[in-house]
Amino acid sequence: MSAKPSGTRLDPWYGAYAARTLGMKASETRALFAVANRPEVVSLAGGMPFLEALPMEIVAKVTADLIATDGTTALQYGNGQGHPKLREAIVEVMAEEHMRPHPDDIVITTGSQQALDLVTRIFCDPGDVVLAEGPSYVGALGVFRAYEADVVHVPMDEHGLVPEALREALAMCAKQGRTIKFLYLIPNFHNPAGVRLPMARREEILAICQSAGVLVVEDNAYGLLAFDGSIIPALHSLDSEGVLYLGTFSKLLAPGYRMGWASAPHAVRERLVLASESAILCPSHYSQLSIAAYLESVDWRGQIADYRDAYRVRCETMNEALSEFLPECSWNIPEGGFYIWTKTPPGIDTKSMLPRATTALVAYVSGTGFYADGQGADHMRLSFCFPTPERIREGIRRLSGVVRRELELVEMFGHPDQLPDDLPADIDVPAPDLA
Amino acid sequence: MSAKPSGTRLDPWYGAYAARTLGMKASETRALFAVANRPEVVSLAGGMPFLEALPMEIVAKVTADLIATDGTTALQYGNGQGHPKLREAIVEVMAEEHMRPHPDDIVITTGSQQALDLVTRIFCDPGDVVLAEGPSYVGALGVFRAYEADVVHVPMDEHGLVPEALREALAMCAKQGRTIKFLYLIPNFHNPAGVRLPMARREEILAICQSAGVLVVEDNAYGLLAFDGSIIPALHSLDSEGVLYLGTFSKLLAPGYRMGWASAPHAVRERLVLASESAILCPSHYSQLSIAAYLESVDWRGQIADYRDAYRVRCETMNEALSEFLPECSWNIPEGGFYIWTKTPPGIDTKSMLPRATTALVAYVSGTGFYADGQGADHMRLSFCFPTPERIREGIRRLSGVVRRELELVEMFGHPDQLPDDLPADIDVPAPDLA
Repeated sequence: MSAKPSGTRLDPWYGAYAARTLGMKASETRALFAVANRPEVVSLAGGMPFLEALPMEIVAKVTADLIATDGTTALQYGNGQGHPKLREAIVEVMAEEHMRPHPDDIVITTGSQQALDLVTRIFCDPGDVVLAEGPSYVGALGVFRAYEADVVHVPMDEHGLVPEALREALAMCAKQGRTIKFLYLIPNFHNPAGVRLPMARREEILAICQSAGVLVVEDNAYGLLAFDGSIIPALHSLDSEGVLYLGTFSKLLAPGYRMGWASAPHAVRERLVLASESAILCPSHYSQLSIAAYLESVDWRGQIADYRDAYRVRCETMNEALSEFLPECSWNIPEGGFYIWTKTPPGIDTKSMLPRATTALVAYVSGTGFYADGQGADHMRLSFCFPTPERIREGIRRLSGVVRRELELVEMFGHPDQLPDDLPADIDVPAPDLA
Repeated sequence: MSAKPSGTRLDPWYGAYAARTLGMKASETRALFAVANRPEVVSLAGGMPFLEALPMEIVAKVTADLIATDGTTALQYGNGQGHPKLREAIVEVMAEEHMRPHPDDIVITTGSQQALDLVTRIFCDPGDVVLAEGPSYVGALGVFRAYEADVVHVPMDEHGLVPEALREALAMCAKQGRTIKFLYLIPNFHNPAGVRLPMARREEILAICQSAGVLVVEDNAYGLLAFDGSIIPALHSLDSEGVLYLGTFSKLLAPGYRMGWASAPHAVRERLVLASESAILCPSHYSQLSIAAYLESVDWRGQIADYRDAYRVRCETMNEALSEFLPECSWNIPEGGFYIWTKTPPGIDTKSMLPRATTALVAYVSGTGFYADGQGADHMRLSFCFPTPERIREGIRRLSGVVRRELELVEMFGHPDQLPDDLPADIDVPAPDLA
């Protein structure tokens, strides 16, 4: 037995952990989020939706009615796959992006994060390869690492994943004899890159994956959040057998419910349900039926349109502020979603600059968080989803001062890595999301 | 790449699954639960609490007030460890059983099932040993199997886990050179065995585990549900460094919130949070703050006392009905909790009898579900938590007819295993919990 406690070690159970545990580490952004949540800091770091756009009085009433009339169901255990009523409503939500799953294809999960965990759990042995855009969602990279899978990044351009680069990655893995389990893809208003994959690329990427026998995991949190309301059909709508789809209510409604879902080919779906029963028994009836009641009672399409309007204004504000205060950076202008992926001038390391930015009361996420291989120090993810337009403008103004000083220091002393690193840590402050 | 789909297989992704996935199988009770949920069936199978005892109008009002006044927090992302307000309330709940953790020791999870998943995830490599009572909770055995850990059962008697048997199991594993990661223990009103571990045994078991350097995982869903309100201090209250504690609101309040927690030594707690962030990002703020508001506004101790009264009456009814209708069985008389663990007469196989019981419109869980090694066919778990006393009595009456016919058949034809097995499957019916 290796678990013998010893008073001389800080952690008496250190010797008892599983191999997978030793690779776990706190996201480099976690301490940051604690700081970024302080009211005096303008946080351009989180992916928190702008919940003030929700009709809270109506949500409160819908929920109270649910509990008063159907509380013994809403507060009881459910089944592992999820309540049929919410699965039927999800089918309607997915139809907005041209998908036509059956409610039986849907597995409801504790946010789409759990769906991603389950997908990785059922597919990935240690050492397997997951292909992912470079950059990719920080939370997904954490899941792949937790299951000891290796991420091979596939480069993107301003239109998203580059098909030719995907062919090259597949060829390289084949040459090395590596087992690819799936391609993880964020087609709409990519986190962090902000871009949307055009229809022709969707078709080309699907054809490549079909011919290579590689499953596509399509993670689509932002597809209904194009500023102009435009839709490009989901990859899942083109190939429901070859594409495992992940959806979420976190950005369409609210993340506090922790409600997401997977839509999967039949045999895969059955394994996802088994894995989920082992992980959590069943998703929350309370959240499921609260959302089902909301979708039934409220004009949710209108509500999503309100969100889109709020984010469009914020994105325009951030774009204008960047043009005014940080013309030495370069960035894409997103057509939807939450993020502007901003390239900094040569010499800046966004990871080492971050403590100095928080000292100047502005926060962002360093681009390094979005790569499994240490790339990204020349980028930062700027979120426009949560702060007011006035705060966004003020945040970019503060950030410009930080970048300006950083450039002066680089000019005087060389690289800023040698400067003191004094990110204040305050783990008592509740941290906002890592999404 | 092994993921190449082939039109000739039912599951084109069959070759792509992780090794752990191939061992996943549906719980033998899952099809049963779908059947057992039909209104005409008296289900003595589920572990669903009697939610009609809750003051739903008050719960509805508390929730509506929360959303109307603090909706932008309650519906927003939270941090991975859980909201401080609920963690502080949990400390008060734990104090009822003499535990004195700090709120920082608490990690909030999606039901205690997720806590168990996380504990197993951070400790167990494939082939590691988990010691568990024989019988043990079916959902825990599923988690251990999902992480490819091997369960070694330690026998129980009418006072719970037998300390001498624990010594023997430890010695056997040591002799075989096997790595034990923890002892999984349900000290109060055991699921399924119904027994409560006396104080002296708690101390003896702790001393044995301390001396062997084995972590104790204490799973305590029912500790506050002694019919007479009596408390035996939790093992965690005796050794907070050597005991990782799992708690839940599923039985004290309601399972639909999916809110449980772990209280763990500092270094372990930090790893649990990392693992949970990877699995679900953060627990539901909506559920967390709903429960915190309930605990703040409602006399929750009085409410638990109401639950106790309801369960005491139901347990007495089941005990009397067993005495009247099934005197050829033997059973313990529980002092709390949800279950009577019933031993059937020689010749009965409770697993093969189950389809015939559901045909007779009564359901139970076969004892085989509670062992990792095929034992248990001479027992059934009878739950008294959910049906009305009248239904419980009717259920036992129906069950006695099934047992009677089974015994006649055994006498005439030998073992009932040779009889047709026609459990109806109906996966469209929502299944109640697996707890």
